Amino acid sequence: MTKVYNFSAGPSMLPQAVLKQAQAEMLDWQGSGMSVMEMSHRGAEFMSIAKTLHDDLRELMAVPDNYQILFLQGGATAQFSFIPANILGDKHKACYINTGAWSEKAIKGAKSYCDVVVSATSEANNFTSIPERSTWNIDEQAAYLHYTPNETIHGVEFQDIPDVGDLPLVADMSSNILSRHIDVSKFGLIYAGTQKNMGPAGAAVVIVRDDLIGKAQKSLPDIFNYEKQAKQESMLNTPATYTWYLVGLVLQWLKAQGGVAAIEQINQRKAKSLYAAIDQSALYSNPVAVADRSRMNVPFILSDDTLDKAFLSTAKEQGFLALKGHRSVGGMRASIYNAMPESGVEALIQFMAEFERTH
Amino acid sequence: MTKVYNFSAGPSMLPQAVLKQAQAEMLDWQGSGMSVMEMSHRGAEFMSIAKTLHDDLRELMAVPDNYQILFLQGGATAQFSFIPANILGDKHKACYINTGAWSEKAIKGAKSYCDVVVSATSEANNFTSIPERSTWNIDEQAAYLHYTPNETIHGVEFQDIPDVGDLPLVADMSSNILSRHIDVSKFGLIYAGTQKNMGPAGAAVVIVRDDLIGKAQKSLPDIFNYEKQAKQESMLNTPATYTWYLVGLVLQWLKAQGGVAAIEQINQRKAKSLYAAIDQSALYSNPVAVADRSRMNVPFILSDDTLDKAFLSTAKEQGFLALKGHRSVGGMRASIYNAMPESGVEALIQFMAEFERTH
Repeated sequence: MTKVYNFSAGPSMLPQAVLKQAQAEMLDWQGSGMSVMEMSHRGAEFMSIAKTLHDDLRELMAVPDNYQILFLQGGATAQFSFIPANILGDKHKACYINTGAWSEKAIKGAKSYCDVVVSATSEANNFTSIPERSTWNIDEQAAYLHYTPNETIHGVEFQDIPDVGDLPLVADMSSNILSRHIDVSKFGLIYAGTQKNMGPAGAAVVIVRDDLIGKAQKSLPDIFNYEKQAKQESMLNTPATYTWYLVGLVLQWLKAQGGVAAIEQINQRKAKSLYAAIDQSALYSNPVAVADRSRMNVPFILSDDTLDKAFLSTAKEQGFLALKGHRSVGGMRASIYNAMPESGVEALIQFMAEFERTH
Repeated sequence: MTKVYNFSAGPSMLPQAVLKQAQAEMLDWQGSGMSVMEMSHRGAEFMSIAKTLHDDLRELMAVPDNYQILFLQGGATAQFSFIPANILGDKHKACYINTGAWSEKAIKGAKSYCDVVVSATSEANNFTSIPERSTWNIDEQAAYLHYTPNETIHGVEFQDIPDVGDLPLVADMSSNILSRHIDVSKFGLIYAGTQKNMGPAGAAVVIVRDDLIGKAQKSLPDIFNYEKQAKQESMLNTPATYTWYLVGLVLQWLKAQGGVAAIEQINQRKAKSLYAAIDQSALYSNPVAVADRSRMNVPFILSDDTLDKAFLSTAKEQGFLALKGHRSVGGMRASIYNAMPESGVEALIQFMAEFERTH
């Protein structure tokens, strides 16, 4: 097997220990004679997997008792399409902060259901910074305020949780959940697709405060209705069982690493090293305001873009995969989620220096 | 590893050859150095997996060129919630045939969007037969007619495709897709969750005729809009990549078995043997009209239901898993999808005879 480092933005690298355990258990989960993907979701074996999954996420994120944890199908895109129908209640508008491509998609999704107040946007500077909190135009009549703590494509990340007063704070944490400590009690609702820091694609986790449950519009299909799924422990329909299992393995791995606090320190070091290498280089640069740089997704451009092709092909030859930037921004991007070891980032830095030296 | 036969109704047994291949490729798909679940869905490797998946399904089911094949997230339940919003167009009602629990769920899902005309129902006889075609009350003003060719819970199955004239025929084939030959050209839309005859849970296949695409209501989220997903080859959002891969492996396995025609003969033999054993027994019985019995899901009851517990525990001890009937109908159920070998059905028949002899 080729030794590779996979910098894909998602689906993305998983811990080798998780893949090895999944491999070992593929035909026979713990003496059951079944693969997890063959199990009835109502059977004792899978119910135990589901319980451990929920318990581990609650422990790792210190989720308070007045929050429900749901695992739903469809990824973050399905969620931002259905959040307004779940939590608007009798209100007719919601505030959104626009910090990049994923904010924009969430805004588009919400517009089918309500008036969207864009309380702040960094579109004018091509999403290279986070709008100052003091400039936000918050409408107190809104049902909630939505933001994207980490923008996967533009590589900007909130370093703190914004204070929005009594308005429920809703966050798409797809690309930084479990990468750093967050105080869940400051949020009304957190959601995240599983395919970046938690496992394979095919599900979304929703952490929702009790008072936001039970406000759904009647026309919302039951499987996307938080109240109905909470009552059925996310098994109103057949869940993506194998995805749940793999997310469970990732959470167990994360606990074995020392949990979120420990991985956060590693993530800080990885990001610091990579940005330092970029900033010190004459070839590479990152356009994002230093204070707002993402620890998870590091976009960079080459000062001579005729070298892009050579950079990518040489990188691939040497086992550095999926470094091409998103088609909407171009250049390069290294996604360095929890599963990317420090050695992978160090190896990338060496490769980039060598490429600069020889080109 | 215990040798088991898994009769779960879904998620359900998968071919051992598929699990072994997935196991072998878990850490390194074909020398890429990546697990399939780590791959970017936009990368060349996964694109080739996706193309083979689509091509194989088109070949196995002989899907005509004027039909699109979509793989969407959320299972059949998501689909029957969104079919009306996709294909009603300017019409306001749809016909549904009620042959059991899954028909009823589809009807409930449709009622949020349109008037439902129940053209026929077998509720009066506890869903133990299919209503005669001559008795159906079809409303020609309806946008389509929906039916469930195989009822997973009640164990009834249409042996032929009903003729409904010019009305587009819509079918939930979750539990019998790829188990028997069907003429796709007689349908407007076929959909199926993947977790019975195709792979793990977490996706649905939709086969939709071109003229039914492009009629979606504007409020329908893009990811459930057939037109928008068709244009993006089902990659408008991140698909459930690992599920796609496993479905692809199952389709390759099915081709190696000789395709649908070959598996249909095996399925006929399996069902015939099991029903014969039940009919000849004094202990077991199946309530379904002989002509309407499902080849996939075989419910049966014990004449003395105080023996149910002993039956299930003895079965489990001997490696016959998940035989408990659905909670809504009680008794037992053996689901014998494509992946259940004839030897598994024969072993079950022997076990049932031995249990009857000793009880």
